[in-house]
Amino acid sequence: MDPRAADTPRPPYYCVIFTSRRKKHIEDDYGDASARMLELAAQMPGFLGIESARDPEGIGITVSYWESEEAIKNWREHAEHLVVQRMGRDRFYEWYESRVAKVERATSFRSGGAA
Amino acid sequence: MDPRAADTPRPPYYCVIFTSRRKKHIEDDYGDASARMLELAAQMPGFLGIESARDPEGIGITVSYWESEEAIKNWREHAEHLVVQRMGRDRFYEWYESRVAKVERATSFRSGGAA
Repeated sequence: MDPRAADTPRPPYYCVIFTSRRKKHIEDDYGDASARMLELAAQMPGFLGIESARDPEGIGITVSYWESEEAIKNWREHAEHLVVQRMGRDRFYEWYESRVAKVERATSFRSGGAA
Repeated sequence: MDPRAADTPRPPYYCVIFTSRRKKHIEDDYGDASARMLELAAQMPGFLGIESARDPEGIGITVSYWESEEAIKNWREHAEHLVVQRMGRDRFYEWYESRVAKVERATSFRSGGAA
């Protein structure tokens, strides 16, 4: 299993789709804050996995997967996460879109040569 | 509005979250096929928008937004799209995860300096 893919269970489950454009002159602590949030999310009850990609232009999409809407609510309201959400608005992002969705169906493909 | 953000209506609506790892030695026609699929999707009934990012390691996430599950079904079964889905499995991707989800809530942020 590629660690960049989320090994999610059979649907239904929930997700947060977070699309953003990072500011060009980003401060050094973005990487630290981002890594810390990943570590913290993975410790939250109901966390199922996360997938993330950011292109060289600064557009990023992160999808985190959760057992329930309550798990998402707990994560959104976690004190340390609230601080970093504020940092995101004040300093890291030009814009973001955050969407909560219920995953209803999923299909996987692995090529013959995949690890 | 940044063209990289999907200007979606108020929820509920649907989305397809497509996460993939591209093969390293990708053939030249990937870019053409990808651009053509984008053009074609945008012409489909019920299409609401698309967001996409691929990082230098080859991990990409594309989220397309749709009015209904039927619109997604029509897109998935479009003849030209079926051909490219096959190309994707045969030649472009190490793996992918495709998830259909119902967007229930959405929030947007624009920084003061954003266009």
